[in-house]
Amino acid sequence: MIVDNAVYVAGHRTADPPSLDETFEVMRERHGFAWIGMYRPSPEELQSVADEFDLPPLAVEDALKGHQRAKIEKYGGSTFLALRPARYLDADERVEFGELHVFLGADYLITVRHAESPDLALVRKRLEGDPELLAKGPLAVLYAVLDQVVDEYAPVINGLENDIDEIEDQLFNGDQEVSRRIYQLSREVMAFQRATHPLSDMLESLRDALAERDADVTLRENLRDVHDHVLRIVERADSFRQLLQNALMVHTTLVGQDQNNEIKKISSWAAILFTPTLVGTIYGMNFEYMPELHWVLGYPFALALMLALGFGLYKAFKRKGWL
Amino acid sequence: MIVDNAVYVAGHRTADPPSLDETFEVMRERHGFAWIGMYRPSPEELQSVADEFDLPPLAVEDALKGHQRAKIEKYGGSTFLALRPARYLDADERVEFGELHVFLGADYLITVRHAESPDLALVRKRLEGDPELLAKGPLAVLYAVLDQVVDEYAPVINGLENDIDEIEDQLFNGDQEVSRRIYQLSREVMAFQRATHPLSDMLESLRDALAERDADVTLRENLRDVHDHVLRIVERADSFRQLLQNALMVHTTLVGQDQNNEIKKISSWAAILFTPTLVGTIYGMNFEYMPELHWVLGYPFALALMLALGFGLYKAFKRKGWL
Amino acid sequence: MIVDNAVYVAGHRTADPPSLDETFEVMRERHGFAWIGMYRPSPEELQSVADEFDLPPLAVEDALKGHQRAKIEKYGGSTFLALRPARYLDADERVEFGELHVFLGADYLITVRHAESPDLALVRKRLEGDPELLAKGPLAVLYAVLDQVVDEYAPVINGLENDIDEIEDQLFNGDQEVSRRIYQLSREVMAFQRATHPLSDMLESLRDALAERDADVTLRENLRDVHDHVLRIVERADSFRQLLQNALMVHTTLVGQDQNNEIKKISSWAAILFTPTLVGTIYGMNFEYMPELHWVLGYPFALALMLALGFGLYKAFKRKGWL
Amino acid sequence: MIVDNAVYVAGHRTADPPSLDETFEVMRERHGFAWIGMYRPSPEELQSVADEFDLPPLAVEDALKGHQRAKIEKYGGSTFLALRPARYLDADERVEFGELHVFLGADYLITVRHAESPDLALVRKRLEGDPELLAKGPLAVLYAVLDQVVDEYAPVINGLENDIDEIEDQLFNGDQEVSRRIYQLSREVMAFQRATHPLSDMLESLRDALAERDADVTLRENLRDVHDHVLRIVERADSFRQLLQNALMVHTTLVGQDQNNEIKKISSWAAILFTPTLVGTIYGMNFEYMPELHWVLGYPFALALMLALGFGLYKAFKRKGWL
Amino acid sequence: MIVDNAVYVAGHRTADPPSLDETFEVMRERHGFAWIGMYRPSPEELQSVADEFDLPPLAVEDALKGHQRAKIEKYGGSTFLALRPARYLDADERVEFGELHVFLGADYLITVRHAESPDLALVRKRLEGDPELLAKGPLAVLYAVLDQVVDEYAPVINGLENDIDEIEDQLFNGDQEVSRRIYQLSREVMAFQRATHPLSDMLESLRDALAERDADVTLRENLRDVHDHVLRIVERADSFRQLLQNALMVHTTLVGQDQNNEIKKISSWAAILFTPTLVGTIYGMNFEYMPELHWVLGYPFALALMLALGFGLYKAFKRKGWL
Repeated sequence: MIVDNAVYVAGHRTADPPSLDETFEVMRERHGFAWIGMYRPSPEELQSVADEFDLPPLAVEDALKGHQRAKIEKYGGSTFLALRPARYLDADERVEFGELHVFLGADYLITVRHAESPDLALVRKRLEGDPELLAKGPLAVLYAVLDQVVDEYAPVINGLENDIDEIEDQLFNGDQEVSRRIYQLSREVMAFQRATHPLSDMLESLRDALAERDADVTLRENLRDVHDHVLRIVERADSFRQLLQNALMVHTTLVGQDQNNEIKKISSWAAILFTPTLVGTIYGMNFEYMPELHWVLGYPFALALMLALGFGLYKAFKRKGWL
Repeated sequence: MIVDNAVYVAGHRTADPPSLDETFEVMRERHGFAWIGMYRPSPEELQSVADEFDLPPLAVEDALKGHQRAKIEKYGGSTFLALRPARYLDADERVEFGELHVFLGADYLITVRHAESPDLALVRKRLEGDPELLAKGPLAVLYAVLDQVVDEYAPVINGLENDIDEIEDQLFNGDQEVSRRIYQLSREVMAFQRATHPLSDMLESLRDALAERDADVTLRENLRDVHDHVLRIVERADSFRQLLQNALMVHTTLVGQDQNNEIKKISSWAAILFTPTLVGTIYGMNFEYMPELHWVLGYPFALALMLALGFGLYKAFKRKGWL
Repeated sequence: MIVDNAVYVAGHRTADPPSLDETFEVMRERHGFAWIGMYRPSPEELQSVADEFDLPPLAVEDALKGHQRAKIEKYGGSTFLALRPARYLDADERVEFGELHVFLGADYLITVRHAESPDLALVRKRLEGDPELLAKGPLAVLYAVLDQVVDEYAPVINGLENDIDEIEDQLFNGDQEVSRRIYQLSREVMAFQRATHPLSDMLESLRDALAERDADVTLRENLRDVHDHVLRIVERADSFRQLLQNALMVHTTLVGQDQNNEIKKISSWAAILFTPTLVGTIYGMNFEYMPELHWVLGYPFALALMLALGFGLYKAFKRKGWL
Repeated sequence: MIVDNAVYVAGHRTADPPSLDETFEVMRERHGFAWIGMYRPSPEELQSVADEFDLPPLAVEDALKGHQRAKIEKYGGSTFLALRPARYLDADERVEFGELHVFLGADYLITVRHAESPDLALVRKRLEGDPELLAKGPLAVLYAVLDQVVDEYAPVINGLENDIDEIEDQLFNGDQEVSRRIYQLSREVMAFQRATHPLSDMLESLRDALAERDADVTLRENLRDVHDHVLRIVERADSFRQLLQNALMVHTTLVGQDQNNEIKKISSWAAILFTPTLVGTIYGMNFEYMPELHWVLGYPFALALMLALGFGLYKAFKRKGWL
Repeated sequence: MIVDNAVYVAGHRTADPPSLDETFEVMRERHGFAWIGMYRPSPEELQSVADEFDLPPLAVEDALKGHQRAKIEKYGGSTFLALRPARYLDADERVEFGELHVFLGADYLITVRHAESPDLALVRKRLEGDPELLAKGPLAVLYAVLDQVVDEYAPVINGLENDIDEIEDQLFNGDQEVSRRIYQLSREVMAFQRATHPLSDMLESLRDALAERDADVTLRENLRDVHDHVLRIVERADSFRQLLQNALMVHTTLVGQDQNNEIKKISSWAAILFTPTLVGTIYGMNFEYMPELHWVLGYPFALALMLALGFGLYKAFKRKGWL
């Protein structure tokens, strides 16, 4: 589906051409650039855009197949970017990855979105409200798209951090589910790292390319800003990996410690229970001459002895910290 | 065995020469290139091809000995590649590695296959159906062979991922076999990494060489595509290693946790069983004055007491979550 | 809040202009440089300074948003630094991170402080007492600020090291809280590494920039000194990470060892307690012909036997080291 | 001891001079090169060779002291190599490292061997049988020596792999000795890595040097072949390290799993043994009115009850998989 | 304290000037160089030397403060080195680090020693006995000092290796103190790595500097020799870290294995002790009709049965390897 199809000249939207042919014509005529937004296009739709703008066939194929890693590829005068936007689903503690493909040319920028995120309508609105930036052409749009994708990583990082905080609480409260949660969160963090890590190199190569071409300074500074943002996200994701690794190791230790404590507690109760049995066994012996057996209060005495021993042991273990 | 032996001119198969001599002649005459496919050739067969095309002796020796790591080596005007195609045997959860040697010259490409995979007949069919690509010469064939080898890695990666998913289920279901499976799968993943990892550098050096020679742009873009594919595979294999490592560590913790739970359960039953024994021991004492002993319902009372205590403990442990 | 606002000429404070406008004027007139210190400025305050000195808008935005990683960014003739000063809160065993932003131009240096530390008043005092250094301009001030930030890392490192020493004692004294403490300290150390690690690259790029411009030798040597200091801090923090990792692993082992020892001790006591029960059970058998039962001293004999066996086992286990 | 001392001209052995002086003379006269093989030479022997060929004193000192890491060092026109040949002692599961020093000049190659391996007589024989290669001078001999050293690593790698396979069997068969074996094998693998790892860089720098000098192509291809061989060995040794690491971790888990199983088995038997005791205790109570006590078949009934309960528990535990 | 203060001309000691002023004068006059050795100098002493030789103030400050990491810093025509000599205290299993600062100029070398090691008197003696080397000037002295520092690392490495060997013995002998020892030795090894690791880069940059200046070949070869020595030490220390890490992991496993064995042994004894109790309980039942109770040899029979069962179990467990 073609969501939006506009031509911009000098920072202002000048036409909403009803067809791609006209877009192309208008763009050429007025020396503007086209910005076409597609959402899950059918192969035919994508192909017609590709034909009109002469997009590189391999990149079009990638956009059709999907499941690309984040990458940037130059094809002659055209550049293809695959991005991996992400959304955090708090209920499932899962990171959902989308895919966004961008075709960038001297006078066009085409976005192919395969998921709800990122919110490109917002990007368009932002840019149409900032004609100065928009006037810098398709690269400005690319910057804004990247900025949006990276901005949407922030809630993911925060969601993950929040889960890690919860895991720490669980960890020291002895919640048994914690190892499964650590495992699954590690998996999400690793997937997130796979999605965001290449972005840093991509931005670096993009910045290098712009620096070589002596491109607009503001744009380059803006991209550096996005790059810095990416680095911060990558660093935090790295630290999550390490924290979860540590949590896993601490958990192993805590499980062992718990076991030590249980064994002590259980052994204490075993001793408390068993000592009266010893008394009972003694007074169950069949010796002819056992004075206690003939005492009138022998039986209460034996019971009292049992209780006293049990209670004494209880106090002793309590003092030792076993109970 | 020489499986196929053809000369291609301008993208079209022009001759199926009955002998290598003629291949060579036809190739020279018509300015085409020869593409010879061999399958487990005898040393003599390989030698005769080597003599005809003047292949580098060290590379021929490597192809004969086998057990090469994936590599690319230039010998004067000829290039030798060793590739490690892989197949996933799902029944055994094993990755089977084949070996494919490629000799690339200005006007020939010779493949020496030592296993069923990769399916080079498919490659030939694909290329013969795409004369435009085939017309670009032996490098185009090399690209198609690499593409096929890398494409065949996809089912391996998927098979491994599938096993890892199963392992995760086993892990949290307490299946004892899981540590052996993790160990063995780690071994397979490591072998797969050894086979695929050098491929990334190989493709990089190949791309550099083509860029230097200002080779055909389409070919270079195609190789970049294969390279990108390899990177994606290498990244996923890396993440498998880490996941399995984590699974192993989680397993250690789960085993400890299981033990804690068993100990609690066992101790509970021990207490439930032992408390009646204490009652019995008490009423087995031989005191002269024990009123209960003379009750008509003393015995049922004692049994009832035993049951009551046992049941009370059972309820108590149940409430505590030990049972 | 603007804390201090002064113009320096040839190393001496020459004016305390009442307003920013005048600062700017005085600075231009006397060919000096302005050094403005702000503490948690309102957006308006920061904006007015930015307007006066034509600070780069993206950097100003960063300074307003805060939560930056340590970084250095050149914007035309102006450089922006984000620094992460740290303070160690011994009571909580926590590292508190502040944020300090520095705008550096040819004739101005503006610091924006968001936390108590670092003590910039001290820096100003130090520099005003060293006119020779101060005469070298804003770069000298930058050096002094960096020096102060890095100097204030020393107590953090010492506090962490002190905690690690305490943890080692706890570890081998069997304190159960130690795993939580290790975990939390690892977290602090990791945060500290994230704050200090980029500083090393920052100083390197700063030094490279100065070397290129053939800047004042003393300044460059001073910066090298700060750099060296940073490296020392980074190295020690790295070693903390490894020590804590080791401590965690040792702890797991010690918990297992403790369990072994407890099991031995408990089993010993179980044997000591149970052996008299066996004696009692034997003399509780109902055989007609059991001579001991008829001995006058049978009962004391049985008790003595019980004690003797118990004591014998106690000695035996003691000798074996189980008790 | 000087094992062999020959002068080669144009690929053929032309003289076996009785003394070093004559070697030197013959070599100069006929424009050949000398190849001297020494085995554990006395300091005097080595010194006399060093004097004759003007070997670099520091290298001679290294050769005398031994215990060098594998390295390559240029001294003016002469190059010194220290190599670490290895042999696998299967009986002890130990890798034995020798030491081989090579002095390489424009017209001489001197090998100083300190252990049985490598088999340099074989190298000499091979080269004397290949005059074409030998005619390329001392570098050809160096290549052949390196090739031999690296070839002799193959049985070491195979021996280690074989042990790892055995360890895997032991691991899953519950052999208790396996952790010691893993530890010791890791140690051997690490020592082997220390010996082989520098070789890769050595060969790289050697190849670079030859490429710079535009040396004979065949020789350079041969060295690349050796290099490739080394890389394969280094990669396999790396994978051994990781496998052993994994095996160690799996072992920890298996030990815990074994413990779980033992505890279940032991607890089952305890329950089976204890339940009859409870029955016995009940019928050992002294109540006046216990009908069973007066049954003629009361005793057999009690025994039967005991057996029935015991057997019932046995079946139940068996079904649960605890026994 | 100024330990020694001499001027060398053409490799020979020419003057022992009574004061620094005279040293300076003599040195200039005779075109020699001064070599001044200080041991824990007071700030005043160091300052007076610094004034005389115009040492860089920042370096002097570093030398006064101490606690430097090993580093090399160029200040104009003067170079400052901080070295970390080490000594192994076998009794405590501790590595003691000293500090040695070296100021190197075109015509002077000043050493500031803060610990007993390294033995610089020995260095002076060695050099005064080798006028040819000494004639190469201050760089030759620097080489000799570095050589001495690095040589003194050898006993440290040997001491550590010796402890690791002992730890391996302890490990497999079940010594409980081993985890503490591993932990502490790891700490020492890490400190040693921190001290020696920078040395490798230092020597590299020193060698590069000399290579650029086309310095004396012998000196450069000597420094390469020291560098090689350092690499060997660094590699061995690295392997120690890994060995200790492995030992720690093996220890965890062994502790678990020990526990398994103890549990089996204890359970066996429990069964041996408990079975007679079951017999006793049976014959303690109060059935009217129990034939054995009336046998004359009933009691001995019961005791014999108890012994027989106990002994039978003992044999059975022995055969199973539990005892």
